[in-house]
Amino acid sequence: MDLKSDWVVGFVDGEGCFYIGINPHDEMTAGYQVLPEFRVVQHQRDIQILYALKRFFNAGVVRKNHEERYELRIRKLESLRKVVDFFEKHPLKTKKNVDFKHFAKIIRMIDAKKHFDKDGIKDIIRIALMMNREKKEKALDILEELENQDKDRVHRADESQ
Amino acid sequence: MDLKSDWVVGFVDGEGCFYIGINPHDEMTAGYQVLPEFRVVQHQRDIQILYALKRFFNAGVVRKNHEERYELRIRKLESLRKVVDFFEKHPLKTKKNVDFKHFAKIIRMIDAKKHFDKDGIKDIIRIALMMNREKKEKALDILEELENQDKDRVHRADESQ
Repeated sequence: MDLKSDWVVGFVDGEGCFYIGINPHDEMTAGYQVLPEFRVVQHQRDIQILYALKRFFNAGVVRKNHEERYELRIRKLESLRKVVDFFEKHPLKTKKNVDFKHFAKIIRMIDAKKHFDKDGIKDIIRIALMMNREKKEKALDILEELENQDKDRVHRADESQ
Repeated sequence: MDLKSDWVVGFVDGEGCFYIGINPHDEMTAGYQVLPEFRVVQHQRDIQILYALKRFFNAGVVRKNHEERYELRIRKLESLRKVVDFFEKHPLKTKKNVDFKHFAKIIRMIDAKKHFDKDGIKDIIRIALMMNREKKEKALDILEELENQDKDRVHRADESQ
């Protein structure tokens, strides 16, 4: 099945999801890992559409999502750059384009290694919070924790003077 | 906002719904009215997409669906013929195309006035039941009732001999 660019834009306007995961990760300097992903979920009856999208972007994995649903998930930075290039050339028409622009900005920040330090992670979380995202509470908690760590550090610095 | 045909196909593959309503209606000979509709539902943040689709098909009404969701609903037979023509020329790529084909068949049956008699309604309900539809139970109940009415009639005819 061959997909045309405009069809892909229309389908992703309906079914696509740009998501920034932020997870605790001991090996990262900032203590958190930023995990951007692009996802399209379908009922298993339309799994062939997911494979067609995988071929279209030449990227990602098709895997089980939940119960009878499957997803194409693209996580590799190199592949996400291609996804970002595509949707910059062929803009989404729904408000999902606002999410996409934030997503694209975060991909560029990751490219510039901003996610390796705590200030970068905080900036990324602030942008991610502007997205129409799942798990907003969790991201807010992490941001608050990182900000409190900063205050503690300032506080401890004050005490040691 | 101008929409391209392929975008519309992709978006409807994700978000469109072809639906055949079957409702009791005293003024119809068969006692039931067939109400086909094409619907696209969006969160209110994307209401402008619904208006763009309304302009694209030059048909339908944008109205509240539920809570923060709005829909473009096309019900007029004349407009549904245009919708059917469009998706026959530009086929859907997901399994929704199977639903669409049943829908198109029913529109043609309505065009041929098949829904004015009980046998036609029964045929329409049988086709509607092959669609990935809401309210399958209700349609099955109606079909059963219509079939029982036929049996009663045969039964009464037997008794009167």
